[in-house]
Amino acid sequence: MAARDDISAEERLIARFFKPLATEPGALALSDDAAVLSAPAGCDLVLKTDAIVGGVHFFPDDAAQAVASKALRVNLSDLAAKGARPLGFLLSLALPKEIGEEWLSGFAEGLRGDSVLFGCPLFGGDTDRTPGPITISIAMIGSVPTGTMVQRSGAKPGDRVFVSGTIGDAALGVMLRKGKQWKLSDAQRQHLISRYLLPQPRSALAEVIRAHASASMDVSDGLVGDFAKLCRASGVGADIEVARVPLSDAAKAVIASDPAALESALTGGDDYEIVCTVPKAKCAGFSAAAGAANVAVTEMGEIKTGEGARFLAQNGQPLTFKQASFSHF
Amino acid sequence: MAARDDISAEERLIARFFKPLATEPGALALSDDAAVLSAPAGCDLVLKTDAIVGGVHFFPDDAAQAVASKALRVNLSDLAAKGARPLGFLLSLALPKEIGEEWLSGFAEGLRGDSVLFGCPLFGGDTDRTPGPITISIAMIGSVPTGTMVQRSGAKPGDRVFVSGTIGDAALGVMLRKGKQWKLSDAQRQHLISRYLLPQPRSALAEVIRAHASASMDVSDGLVGDFAKLCRASGVGADIEVARVPLSDAAKAVIASDPAALESALTGGDDYEIVCTVPKAKCAGFSAAAGAANVAVTEMGEIKTGEGARFLAQNGQPLTFKQASFSHF
Repeated sequence: MAARDDISAEERLIARFFKPLATEPGALALSDDAAVLSAPAGCDLVLKTDAIVGGVHFFPDDAAQAVASKALRVNLSDLAAKGARPLGFLLSLALPKEIGEEWLSGFAEGLRGDSVLFGCPLFGGDTDRTPGPITISIAMIGSVPTGTMVQRSGAKPGDRVFVSGTIGDAALGVMLRKGKQWKLSDAQRQHLISRYLLPQPRSALAEVIRAHASASMDVSDGLVGDFAKLCRASGVGADIEVARVPLSDAAKAVIASDPAALESALTGGDDYEIVCTVPKAKCAGFSAAAGAANVAVTEMGEIKTGEGARFLAQNGQPLTFKQASFSHF
Repeated sequence: MAARDDISAEERLIARFFKPLATEPGALALSDDAAVLSAPAGCDLVLKTDAIVGGVHFFPDDAAQAVASKALRVNLSDLAAKGARPLGFLLSLALPKEIGEEWLSGFAEGLRGDSVLFGCPLFGGDTDRTPGPITISIAMIGSVPTGTMVQRSGAKPGDRVFVSGTIGDAALGVMLRKGKQWKLSDAQRQHLISRYLLPQPRSALAEVIRAHASASMDVSDGLVGDFAKLCRASGVGADIEVARVPLSDAAKAVIASDPAALESALTGGDDYEIVCTVPKAKCAGFSAAAGAANVAVTEMGEIKTGEGARFLAQNGQPLTFKQASFSHF
């Protein structure tokens, strides 16, 4: 039996679609059991895994390229919130048998584009068949200078609370995708839908967070619930003024016509923004550095002693929510 | 809204079942977006991901504890073949909604046991719902002294070919699970079935491989196809004597009554043994060190110039196989 006859369909698939992404020498062109990585000197590694599942985290008819981007970006968002830069990633892909080369080609193209854009090459991976939906699990490896990863637990009373970008777009976008009717311009509608389809990880903010923030996390399961986690980890409370939570024009238009949508915006998730706390003396520097990095950040409240992250309405009364954040369980 | 009301079912699940496995300080008790890891000084990191899917890699009625062990062990097997010791792992878990606390409790117990046994704590993870089968993706991080990871590509003509343990047990075991009838004792039957259910990664051999082997990989998709990959990566050929491939008594009994089962044993996969090549001058040392590590290793052939890994029958003629190894695609 000649060795050349042994090359399996799986090996051919990996060589064709994924080997071009394995640009690091340590990935060994995906032709070994494992990858080898020299950790950068003077750095800690930052490790994160997040999976997306067809019909749960994306719609079955989303473009393969966008699905690939989402799979990478939900992990890149976490790294950015920790102040880390990506080094590369491992990909575990389970595919139903109806997935063919066209989908794989688009998927690989999406991975390749973001891999270049965010500087995160493929270290290695695993492909399997599944009788279930497309399931993509990414393990992302990043680095920070030793001892500088920004945790959730460092917020102190008096720190100001900032959030990047705008909140609620993706949660409203997914409601539109599911058939919700609001009176919006085409551009507004498209803005909300695209914010669900394609997260924009705030990688440009990573260094700024590391230099200024006392605590930080990404907003993926809803601002209210996620920020409550940060407060619990830090052993503090907070007062957030709902009127200061940054909203896009499209989200404002939805909420103007349907005030109940405010709760969806604040608790719905898929924002992939960063919520962080900054000591008062560092706030001006933080805002300036974020501006220089071209990422909008908005101050929306203050850390307090005690416990409980309160979201205050215009009348000063705390809002209550049916469910603070998205939960799979 | 008090913070204590925000704790989601997902957070409770993680705290109850998985936090006890996160024994490394850098895992931050699973209460942050990411884990932080100081890479050991003077070491390279070795990175591997492998997933298992219900109905594909395990039977839906396999015990949750065994499923957890298999998910970890298929990755530990790769690390051992590379000469690496594990540092820890990331877990990405997609669960159908009918999975309840009883299954999760067994699953966590299986992870905990092997996490202690093999010295690989949980760094972090992700839990999701899926409309498909249980899908468990592990990303394993290990280390080797800098520059010493054993690749597939180092085999040289004249090197001897060794394999650990016995080959084919799991492939025959899965045929038994699917209803194949062979005349076997209960103990033989149980041996084959348990070899499929619970891989035994050769972690005890990692240091021995690193000190002696010129090339190495784990046997997971079938000896014939996997060894052909090693030969291709090394740009060499090989002659393997089929009579020297180590078989368990149970596998020998199957093949004695059903000679066609030999092909299943050699190409079926799920062995999680190590096939490696050792320079002639190091063979005695390799065998002695493996013996000291309590892992049986068997010499079964020699690396040649040229290409093609030939499996020779008693009459010296190369065998041909329908499919050299398992492929999902």
